[in-house]
Amino acid sequence: MTAEIICVGTELLLGHILNKNAQYLAQQLASLGIPHYYQTVVGDNVERLKQVIKIASDRSNVLIFTGGLGPTPDDLTTETLADFFGVPLVEKPEILADIAQKYAVRGRVMTPSNRKQALIPEGAEVLPNSSGTAPGIIWSPISNLHILTFPGVPSEMQRMWQETAVPYLKNLGFGQEIIYSRTLKFWGIAESTLAEKVSAFLNLPNPTVAPYASRGEVKLRVSAKANSQAEAEQLIAPIEQQLQAIAGLNYYGQDEDSLASVVGQLLQREDATLSVAESCTGGGLGQMMTDIAGSSRYFMGGVISYDNQVKVSLLGVNLQALQQEGAVSRTVAAQMAEGVRSLLGTTWGLSITGIAGPDGGTSTKPVGLVYIGLAQSNEKVQVFEHRYGQDRSRSLIRHLSACTALDLLRRKLLEKDH
Amino acid sequence: MTAEIICVGTELLLGHILNKNAQYLAQQLASLGIPHYYQTVVGDNVERLKQVIKIASDRSNVLIFTGGLGPTPDDLTTETLADFFGVPLVEKPEILADIAQKYAVRGRVMTPSNRKQALIPEGAEVLPNSSGTAPGIIWSPISNLHILTFPGVPSEMQRMWQETAVPYLKNLGFGQEIIYSRTLKFWGIAESTLAEKVSAFLNLPNPTVAPYASRGEVKLRVSAKANSQAEAEQLIAPIEQQLQAIAGLNYYGQDEDSLASVVGQLLQREDATLSVAESCTGGGLGQMMTDIAGSSRYFMGGVISYDNQVKVSLLGVNLQALQQEGAVSRTVAAQMAEGVRSLLGTTWGLSITGIAGPDGGTSTKPVGLVYIGLAQSNEKVQVFEHRYGQDRSRSLIRHLSACTALDLLRRKLLEKDH
Repeated sequence: MTAEIICVGTELLLGHILNKNAQYLAQQLASLGIPHYYQTVVGDNVERLKQVIKIASDRSNVLIFTGGLGPTPDDLTTETLADFFGVPLVEKPEILADIAQKYAVRGRVMTPSNRKQALIPEGAEVLPNSSGTAPGIIWSPISNLHILTFPGVPSEMQRMWQETAVPYLKNLGFGQEIIYSRTLKFWGIAESTLAEKVSAFLNLPNPTVAPYASRGEVKLRVSAKANSQAEAEQLIAPIEQQLQAIAGLNYYGQDEDSLASVVGQLLQREDATLSVAESCTGGGLGQMMTDIAGSSRYFMGGVISYDNQVKVSLLGVNLQALQQEGAVSRTVAAQMAEGVRSLLGTTWGLSITGIAGPDGGTSTKPVGLVYIGLAQSNEKVQVFEHRYGQDRSRSLIRHLSACTALDLLRRKLLEKDH
Repeated sequence: MTAEIICVGTELLLGHILNKNAQYLAQQLASLGIPHYYQTVVGDNVERLKQVIKIASDRSNVLIFTGGLGPTPDDLTTETLADFFGVPLVEKPEILADIAQKYAVRGRVMTPSNRKQALIPEGAEVLPNSSGTAPGIIWSPISNLHILTFPGVPSEMQRMWQETAVPYLKNLGFGQEIIYSRTLKFWGIAESTLAEKVSAFLNLPNPTVAPYASRGEVKLRVSAKANSQAEAEQLIAPIEQQLQAIAGLNYYGQDEDSLASVVGQLLQREDATLSVAESCTGGGLGQMMTDIAGSSRYFMGGVISYDNQVKVSLLGVNLQALQQEGAVSRTVAAQMAEGVRSLLGTTWGLSITGIAGPDGGTSTKPVGLVYIGLAQSNEKVQVFEHRYGQDRSRSLIRHLSACTALDLLRRKLLEKDH
């Protein structure tokens, strides 16, 4: 038994809306343990929709449609399904009554075009829509094929899915086995390097392990098929342990964790506080830290020293160093970190100065060159140099700089454990 | 000639990521006037991918693939395409050299698995990836069929699309009749209110006008179908003027403009400078300002005064006001704005203090309450109160606060024009 998602709507083909329905349904199918191998988007066109129904009904057993249930002439899903399977449409008085009543509550009068929404294929059941006017259908037109239709409005579709579709699918025998996933997160290692180190795990049947990467972060998704979440977690635990051991300090957290949340936990563990001095990131590092609710317990604030004058007047950066070595230099990064740490009286001070581009690079100091300073009370300031490459965008260089700064602090905070 | 989008990746079938690539490509195909009737998602599986290639190559002439170009064993797109069309893979030394060079710049060593990325079908051309390691291909394996492949990482895909795919498709004869769009941007007005004000425009045949909204911003997309961009612009210009006149000061810019870029232009126009004092946004306002390349001409920096102590010691906020009225108050917002303005010696000072939640709200000061202070040299500080509602997320409240602060400054800078 496999399912397939078919989203109907010309607005999807024009790129006017993002297909969030497909993602929601995909997650739902996974959690019910229903395999699904294809998603299709097709426009409001009878012939092309029929072709898609033909292909999907030949290869899958549960077809889930979204869109095309409204009252306008370009809403074609129900009548095209009926036509494809050669079944007449019948008017359901209870649907008409429901639509009329909903219009009355909103102080509106039902229009003749709504009548169309009361027509469903003979033999199909109504899939009620408690929050909108367009109901769906649940229909098994031929043996071993189940069709469910939903409107395209995400909130209506989701409610109908939970209220009616899930019990129906469980009744068919689905949802006994679930797919449960955990995502392990890594920083400071390339996807290909990590994939090679854990290559032995990438062909496991259950749980499966799959690598992903985006904007500098690498993830391994560990997915288990089991009869319950507890059983899935038992399957995942030993694999997770081994993957963490292989990755060492490059592993930083899982699922909802971010570098900022992990750094926050480590700071709290030792009752430490943090302040930041930002040049090229312009506030992005502070924003990441304060994304975490409750971060006021360890994050005090900082200085956005975008202009060099601010580096001198507020952070105490040496004017001579600034002139001789430049704002993007080891010395300035060190003085910024120590400057903000002592100004705000925190345990740690973290600074970033770099060339985010697209302009401002030179042959010795190219776009993508970033210095990160890390100051700690009673310790010598450490400075780290990173070169993100001139081919990367301003936005990505700023993002990588802020994440790398958090990662350096994370590793430093973990040093004591090793 | 019709195109078709095929997104390859089990992560899409599991619902782990939203299919933003399909939307981007759909918009791009529309703007080039290339009809496209189907989008398909398929997992990392050779047999099913072959089935999809069969179906798509039977009904469309331009197949656009995203995903499955990485170095890991589950990246299968290139080899499956070669296998389907019965063509051997050949190693391209220039790809290997490019990957090795990119690794070298980043101080990393290429791994053997990257070698796989240098294999492309015989007769195919390389579609270069200037920002990542995975190149795509442009290939016409049989007559009247064109295949383009892209990595799944949106930023890389988009750059490759613009740099190589668009010229290639134009060369094939596409993009003669073009759809050209301009997006007008608004802040401070609800989508439904704006839609009602401009309702007479929403049924125009050419150009069409369509409203969108996301995260507080409302947009009107004006799309014209024409033989050239110049002709489209002529169709759009009078409509655009009328829409701007109706929206008044709520209209702030178009296309690539952001509130931060518009504020930057207005500041430069009067040779003014800006500094910021941020509490609940934690650096987000500074980050928005510095998203704009060249912002160092007018943005000096600021203070992230997340902790109250920082508000007092750096910004000169009155301890008594802090204790009596609280950190989220008119008085503190005013003192923060004037404090940072005089500390950094700028023309303008902009402050934000509020309750971003999810915790920390009270009945008199609920989550979503935000004060924005705007100080100007030799003028009385102005303070604006906003209530974004307790049902909004921490992330959205922070975003709306920073945007609203920029919008207030924008309106202030425009006052002189009126």
